[in-house]
Formats: sequence, structure tokens, C-alpha cells
Amino acid sequence: MTRLAFIGLGIMGLPMAKNLVAAGFEVAGYNRSRSKVDAFAAAGGRGADSVREAVRGAEVIVTMLPDSPDVEEVVLGDVLENAAEGALLIDCSSIRPEVSRRVAEEAAAKGIRALDAPVSGGEQGAIDGALSIMVGGAAADFESARPVLDAVGGTVVHVGPAGCGQTVKAANQLIVAGTIELVAEALVFLEAHGVDTAAAITVLAGGLAGNRILDRKAEAMAKREFTPGFRVELHHKDLGIVQSAARDAGVAIPLGAAVAQLMGALNAQGHGALDHGALLKIVEQLSGRGRGTE
Amino acid sequence: MTRLAFIGLGIMGLPMAKNLVAAGFEVAGYNRSRSKVDAFAAAGGRGADSVREAVRGAEVIVTMLPDSPDVEEVVLGDVLENAAEGALLIDCSSIRPEVSRRVAEEAAAKGIRALDAPVSGGEQGAIDGALSIMVGGAAADFESARPVLDAVGGTVVHVGPAGCGQTVKAANQLIVAGTIELVAEALVFLEAHGVDTAAAITVLAGGLAGNRILDRKAEAMAKREFTPGFRVELHHKDLGIVQSAARDAGVAIPLGAAVAQLMGALNAQGHGALDHGALLKIVEQLSGRGRGTE
Amino acid sequence: MTRLAFIGLGIMGLPMAKNLVAAGFEVAGYNRSRSKVDAFAAAGGRGADSVREAVRGAEVIVTMLPDSPDVEEVVLGDVLENAAEGALLIDCSSIRPEVSRRVAEEAAAKGIRALDAPVSGGEQGAIDGALSIMVGGAAADFESARPVLDAVGGTVVHVGPAGCGQTVKAANQLIVAGTIELVAEALVFLEAHGVDTAAAITVLAGGLAGNRILDRKAEAMAKREFTPGFRVELHHKDLGIVQSAARDAGVAIPLGAAVAQLMGALNAQGHGALDHGALLKIVEQLSGRGRGTE
Amino acid sequence: MTRLAFIGLGIMGLPMAKNLVAAGFEVAGYNRSRSKVDAFAAAGGRGADSVREAVRGAEVIVTMLPDSPDVEEVVLGDVLENAAEGALLIDCSSIRPEVSRRVAEEAAAKGIRALDAPVSGGEQGAIDGALSIMVGGAAADFESARPVLDAVGGTVVHVGPAGCGQTVKAANQLIVAGTIELVAEALVFLEAHGVDTAAAITVLAGGLAGNRILDRKAEAMAKREFTPGFRVELHHKDLGIVQSAARDAGVAIPLGAAVAQLMGALNAQGHGALDHGALLKIVEQLSGRGRGTE
Repeated sequence: MTRLAFIGLGIMGLPMAKNLVAAGFEVAGYNRSRSKVDAFAAAGGRGADSVREAVRGAEVIVTMLPDSPDVEEVVLGDVLENAAEGALLIDCSSIRPEVSRRVAEEAAAKGIRALDAPVSGGEQGAIDGALSIMVGGAAADFESARPVLDAVGGTVVHVGPAGCGQTVKAANQLIVAGTIELVAEALVFLEAHGVDTAAAITVLAGGLAGNRILDRKAEAMAKREFTPGFRVELHHKDLGIVQSAARDAGVAIPLGAAVAQLMGALNAQGHGALDHGALLKIVEQLSGRGRGTE
Repeated sequence: MTRLAFIGLGIMGLPMAKNLVAAGFEVAGYNRSRSKVDAFAAAGGRGADSVREAVRGAEVIVTMLPDSPDVEEVVLGDVLENAAEGALLIDCSSIRPEVSRRVAEEAAAKGIRALDAPVSGGEQGAIDGALSIMVGGAAADFESARPVLDAVGGTVVHVGPAGCGQTVKAANQLIVAGTIELVAEALVFLEAHGVDTAAAITVLAGGLAGNRILDRKAEAMAKREFTPGFRVELHHKDLGIVQSAARDAGVAIPLGAAVAQLMGALNAQGHGALDHGALLKIVEQLSGRGRGTE
Repeated sequence: MTRLAFIGLGIMGLPMAKNLVAAGFEVAGYNRSRSKVDAFAAAGGRGADSVREAVRGAEVIVTMLPDSPDVEEVVLGDVLENAAEGALLIDCSSIRPEVSRRVAEEAAAKGIRALDAPVSGGEQGAIDGALSIMVGGAAADFESARPVLDAVGGTVVHVGPAGCGQTVKAANQLIVAGTIELVAEALVFLEAHGVDTAAAITVLAGGLAGNRILDRKAEAMAKREFTPGFRVELHHKDLGIVQSAARDAGVAIPLGAAVAQLMGALNAQGHGALDHGALLKIVEQLSGRGRGTE
Repeated sequence: MTRLAFIGLGIMGLPMAKNLVAAGFEVAGYNRSRSKVDAFAAAGGRGADSVREAVRGAEVIVTMLPDSPDVEEVVLGDVLENAAEGALLIDCSSIRPEVSRRVAEEAAAKGIRALDAPVSGGEQGAIDGALSIMVGGAAADFESARPVLDAVGGTVVHVGPAGCGQTVKAANQLIVAGTIELVAEALVFLEAHGVDTAAAITVLAGGLAGNRILDRKAEAMAKREFTPGFRVELHHKDLGIVQSAARDAGVAIPLGAAVAQLMGALNAQGHGALDHGALLKIVEQLSGRGRGTE
């Protein structure tokens, strides 16, 4: 039985770690706030008092941290300092591709194999073990990681060398934000012209305009229901990664840059805790319609 | 057996008219260029020498014309002047909502019932009788029109009063153009970062970023295959309608306006005859990558 | 002494017509609302009861109308129908270049010489006879018109053949709107960072960032004083002309299109009667700062 | 006589340091490449072999470094480690406001007074001692620095506490980039409509659209002369600072974000060494006109 360490037992990390326990792995879990560690222990995991304690002796180390600086601090710090040579590091955090490349380099220098493996699918996907996972790193390491990844993910795909998992996650967040905004513009436009939006959503979803936002979110958006789901403040963070990574690569993303402004506006207006479908509020506000973002 | 007139036997109109003949309607077809009329006659239709001849005595009149000025000239002219009182006019052209509303008003003044019924699904959808049809007008008239619409469409939806069909078509074209651009930005971004784009498309298509463009066009876009499909010059025209209708309604469409600039650029660069997936050329060009739009 | 007709005695037209009277021209003035005609007569002009009466026998006809449809109705109608062969038509309205080109063509067909001569400088410039006037048409006709134009303008420039005056006016409105928005973004950005904006405006105005908006409007914008000046609803109209003319010419105006969305939003929110410097309200609103557009 | 250290003798730094020598200051200069130090010594300065040597015993330390990471390395490193308590640090580098704030904090902790004092005006302004200087920091420190700043600048303005100098410089670069793009869009638009652009520039420059870009750069842009001036690659860097600082403050900059994409495109296409007026090439390219960016 493989010995795992799991660092970061938050909204996503805790259910993922539980699924690994359920799949039969021996998992030592650590989180900065002790209550999460206790919750993990109560679910059959082994609680650890420090990153160091969790990582020592682990064959596979899974990390799920909030942002690039956290990974720079924890992974480039205690994790790599205490991991055994030959260990496999799977970083599921959504961070800047260049940070993942640096993690891979520093890991390699210590004889540790590293993958970047950001996920999408949200809390429900984490609970269900049905996450989409985009993995960057060496193909052989990806194969080694499959049993672990399959225990938490539904779609698990190797997309290229180190950093590529992050790049695909960034592309995902670019498309999702842009599509929400397009649907929001369409909905406000349709309402302003007196269209039956429910009927319109049906016909739009059935043609070339069809997308998951129309399928899953448009109805709630039309009803101004913005309970997350995925929070504006997180998508705002992710669009920062998108812009930074596009800039690093010299790639123009005119629509990506435009929707990043709008998501940033929504966040600046104090709506960071709403579902990202709330982009509709910005369109409504700009159009002088409804209650805008009062 | 219902007597129909069909005005406009172009790439879309001819197969639609043939499907109506095949469904058992008696159809008199007219087109400005005689060769299309002959082709229609060869397929079992009745060729007419003028709009007037086609329209006289028809119970249902279907029109499929290129743009707003054509509808203003032909429908507000010969069609309404020669249509019998009580006839039902189904205008399948994609035009500005306000023109459809004017058609409905002028028709009503002559005792003619009118629907705006723009379609999506392309030439293949027209041939297969599988078009999506978004219908604006009175509910009772929509019911009267169903036998005709069902003979040419797969998804036929009543979306509101006069003009609403056009509004939904415009929303469709807004979302489609925007989604193509988002996928184009994502693809160039992924390539620039060395990602395996085929694997990336698979995983993106499986999550919240999933859409029909990823399903049907992204692979061809990644291969720089831009055989239409739907031509840039037509989508450019349609985005003109979108902008005009949004302006009329006082609705902000920041992403719609941005992608309209990019589609316009593609058209201005002489790529009007390519598939709209060629938006990728603009992203590539702006990013100084590949062959751009040479 | 040259006999003039002046059609359109509005906010701009009335002081222009008065300045022509003061310069010694014999001017017959007409406006749809009689009160303006009376005001003109009280100032020493000759009031006319109809376009026809004003235009009959005039050597020079000046028109100053609100928008393209007005010019299509009045100039292409009563003015050209009643103008004497050999008369000189100076249309000072700000309209679409293609309408000015059509006016020039229809005028030429009747032996009438036509110039498009839109102005900038606002009500105060009109009162002071200090307008900037951008003139399109034949060089010889421009020379004939100079005495008239010099009586109402400070800077009078011939910029090309028919329609070119409108094109330059459109370019003017594009740059002005964009510059206001840039200054608005800068001001909100500076405030958010705790900068002394008065000092900042001084230093910005002195360098390569210097512009008339910083010189004339930034201080009022910083104080949230939005008394017109030039009204949002008019600038919104003008940006419609800009977009339409850019589209006709196949020219990309990414910043122009973006600011047109923002000016449209301001207008849609009910701020059409404010000075265009109120674009700052949109930036503030999007940034969740101050009172936004409450 | 005040003893100065000057760190960073590049295109801007060398002439600034020379002007300080000419003004009677005793200046120890250091640069990473020895040739610049020699050039400075040849001009009457004292060459130093290290930051440490230059800084030791200096009453005022002026730094002029390329980018934020350089300031983090050199200023937060050797400069602050070797500066005498009570010394005054004037950082003229253009960097992120938050880095300037961190410099001020770390300096204060060592009893060193710090100002951020980025400049504009280019190489010529540096040679002429006519730079515009935007200064952030304590008012008393600004007064102490005046004799030094006046020796290199023409317009020297205190704009707020630490970091504010950088914020104003960022606002300056936002307005300049945006204005160049607006003028570029206007020029291509005017050309496409057959306007005499020289005449148009004159009339535009005289009204509310007037700005320094029309005054100083539009003629060269119209002739496609793009000799710097200020290089695209530097402006691209600066727009990165603008976006980052706007994001930090939660301020929406829709036009700023749009022009940053276009400047980035120009840079990605290999035109980093051209003058920033070359934004016109992007507009031309998007419009399918001229030689674009071939």
C-alpha cells in the first residue's frame, strides 16, 4: 500500500484526501488550521502536526494550496526539504505555469519527480471523485501517478511537460469566464428586446452556440441566482494567472483581457463571494437595467 | 394541399424549398438569377418568373434573402403588394430586428400575418431539413406555420413577438463568434506554452469550458483548416446586426463589440470566404506567431 | 452683399446665424420651432416660414441639423428642391460621411455646389465665432465659402473631397471620447492609490501625456462636476457615426469600439444630459468606488 | 558640497549623473558594465568599483535601474546595507508602486529616508536636464531632495506619500499609450476615407482632441517613421506595471487593458525596438491596409 502525504485540507483538498483514504491509500494529512486536520482524522486519515511530519517517508506527496505564493513557500520550502529522494510530488494547486516549472526544476535537483495537476469540477467534483485533472510533467511520472489521480478524478489527461497542466487550467478559466460573459450579454440583450429567455436558451443550447454555461448556469443567471458554485474572487485570481501567463508567452488574448476587467470589476464591487455567473450583474449595470449591482 | 411561395433560392433557400416540395407542399419558387429557378423546377418545384407570380394566390410565403436592404426592397415591396389578405408570411432571412418589426407592422396593415423565422445550422442543416429555427410573431401564427417549419427544421421554437426571432439569431451569432475567439485565444496560448493541444481540447471539452466549437471546430482550427462552414463575411454582416440591435436597446456588449472588431479585421484582410474559425489567424498574427494572415 | 439661408437655429445654429448677420450678410433663417425663428429675427435676421422660403434666391445655404435622418429629409428634400442652380450649400451638421457624399452627388446633379463642414468647439465656440470647421468638398467651392466660414469659425481647414469633413469630425470625436476615458481611468487609479490628483494633473499635463482634456476637464472630473459642455447623448450619437464609418471603410478601431460601449452605457444609465466627462462615473462604478452612477 | 552616489549609468542615468556633476555635486557613479563607469569618470565624475563603494558615506543616493527585480536586488540589497543612517535615497527607476512602498519601509527601518522619483522626458530630457519628475514620499524629504532633482529635472512635483511617484508615472504611461493608439486609429481611418491627413492633424490638434501625440508624433506616424523616441519594449514593460497596479487597487481600466494587448502584440511581433508610435502598424495590419507589420 502506497504511503501518501496530503498537504492542504481545504474545501477541495479535504474531500480529495478522503477519497484517497477510501481508495485504500495510507494518507498523512496536514493543514495549517488544526480543525481541518481533525476532520480528516475523523474520516479515517492520519493527522500530521507539520508539513515535515506528513512528508517524511511518503512515496507520493499531494499538495492543494490556494495560490502561487503558498506553493513557493510550502512546496519549495518544507515539502522539498523533507521529501525522500525518489518521491513523487503531485501539486494540484492552480498557480502560474512558471512557478510549476520552477517546482519541477528544484524537485529534479533533489531527485524528486514532480507533476503539476490542477483540477476543475468544483467542490462537488472533489466530493464525487469526478474532477477533471490536467497533468503536466514526464509521461512516466504521469503513469506512476495514475492510481492516485484516478482515485480523485474522472477525466485525467496528460497534456505535456512541466507547467502544461497549469497552462491548460488557465485556458479553461479563460474560456469559462468568457463564455459566462457572452451568455450574460446575450441574456440582457434578449430581455431588453422582450424575448422569452427560457425558450431562447433552449434553442441557443441546441446549436453551434451551445455550451455548458447555457446548459448549467443560464437559467440561474436569468433568475439572478448567484449562489456559488465557483466564486468570483477565485475566478478573478485565476484570470490574473491567465494574463500573466499570456504575457510571458507573448500571446494576445483580447477577449481574455476584456473579461478579466469585468470579473475584476465584479470583485471590486464587493461581489467576490458570489458565483461567477454574476458577471450578468455587470452587463445589467452597464446597460442601466434591473437592479445592477446595488 | 397548402400552396406556398418561396422567394430566394440561394445556398440556404434552394434546399429548404426542395424539402418543402418533398414534404408534399405545392411550391412556386422565385430567384433573381434564373438558373436557380430552373434548378428548383428540375427538383419538382414550380418555377416562377417574378415575385408577383410566385406570391399571387399563395397561402404561405417563405422568404430567404441575404440582408436587411433586400428584405426592405422585396418583402416591403412586391411581396406585400401581391400577397393575398390572410396569407402567412414567414421571413427566414437574418436581418435587423427592427426591420422584422416593420415588416410585421406593414403586413398587419394589409391583413397579412407575418413571422420572423431566421435559421441556424448552415447549408448541411438546410439540406437535411434539420435547421434550428427561432420564430418571432403571434403564437397563433406560429402554430399555423408549424407544418411548414417542421418540414425544414429540426428545432423549431417560438421565442416571442415580432422581431424576437431575429434577436435570438443575433444572440446566437454573438455567442458563436465570441466562443470561436475564446477557443482561438486558448489554442494559441496552449501552443505557445508547448501543450499537447489535442489532449487539451479533450479535457477542456469535458468540463465547464465545454462548447460546440471545441467539439466541432477546434481540431480543424488547430490544423489551420478553414474551409467553410460558415463564412467570415456573413458572420461579419451578422455582427453588424448584433451591434446595431444592442445599440437600439441600450445594452452593453463589451465582448461582442471586441469580437466584432476582430471579425471585421479578418474580413478587411481579405479572408471573408474562409470559415469563421479563421479568427485564429488574427490571434496568431497579433501574437507574432505562425504564418499569421500572410 | 451675399444672400444667405440658414436652416436649423438650435443651440449651435442660432449663434452661428447671428454671427453671420453681424458680419454683414443678409440671412434668412428657418427653424421647425417658431420661437427660434423669432429669436433670430429679434437679433436682426430675417425670419422665414419654411425651408422653401428661406432657400429661394439664396446664394449660400447653411444647414445645421441634428442627425443623418434630418439631413436626408430636409437637405435631400426641400433644400435641394428649392435651391437655385449655382447656389453653394454648406452643411454644418455632424452626420455619416456617406450621407454627405450622397448630398454632394444629388446637389451636383442639380448644379448646386456642396460642402460638408461639421464644426467643433461647442456652444461657446459658436457664440464666439471661434469654431473649428473641417471642410470636405471641391477646393474651389471651399474658397467660395471662406467668407461665410470665417464669420463663424476660428480654424477653418479644407481636408479633402466630399465627406472628408465628416470623417475628420468623426476622428475628432473618437479621439476626444477616448482621451476622456483615459483621463478618467487615470484619475480613479490615482485616487485609489492615494495620490494628490491636482499635483498629478499638473505633471501629467506637462509631458507627453498632455492633452486638452487634462487642461480643461480633468479638474472638474476630479470634483465630479459634470455640467455640460458637450452632452453624453450627443457624443453617443457621434460614436455611432464613428463606428459606422469605420465599418464601411474596413478599419479596425479597437479603442474606439471599447469607448463607444462605455459612452453607450453612460447614456443607457440615464446620464445623457451630463457632460461627456461623466465617463469617470462608469470607471468609478466598475471599480466599486465613490458613488458610481447612483 | 553634498556627496552623492549614483547607481545605474545607462541611457538615462549617465546624462543625469553628468548633470549632477555639472551642477557642482561630488558624485560617485557605479554601473554593472565598467565602460559606463569609465565614461562617467571621463566626464568629471568619480567612478566606483561597487555599489558598496559608491554608497559608503554618501548623503544622497540616486538609483536609476531598469525594472522592479533590479531594484529589489540592488536597492533592497547592497544599497540599503551600506547606506549611512540619515542618508536620502532617491529611486528614479520606473517600477511597481508596491516595490517602492517596500523600499520606503525597509529604508525607514534603517533610518534612511526614501523617495520614489520616476521620470519622463526620454534621453533628450535627461541630457537637457529637463525631465518631468513625479515624486512620492514625505514632504520634508522632498524638500531636501529638491536641489538634486532640480539639477536633472524641469518639472519636479511632489504627488503624495511613498509609491505615489510610481503611480503617477504609471498613469502617464497609460495615457500616452492610449493616446498613441487613438491617434493611430484616427489616422488609418482618415487615410481609408481619402482625407488629407496633414490638414486633418492640424485641425484635430487645434480643438478638444488636441494632445502632445498629435503635436509631436502624428506626422512621423503618418509617414511610417518609427525611429525611437521611446521604445515599444519599454512601454510594454510599463503597461505591465500599470495593469498590475490597477489590479492591486481594484480599479477598472478597460482602455488601458485593451491598449496593453496591442502594445504586447507589437512587441511579440518583433517590433520592440521601434518607437511606440508604431502602434499604427497594428491598426494598419488589423485593417488589412498598407504593409502592416511585414
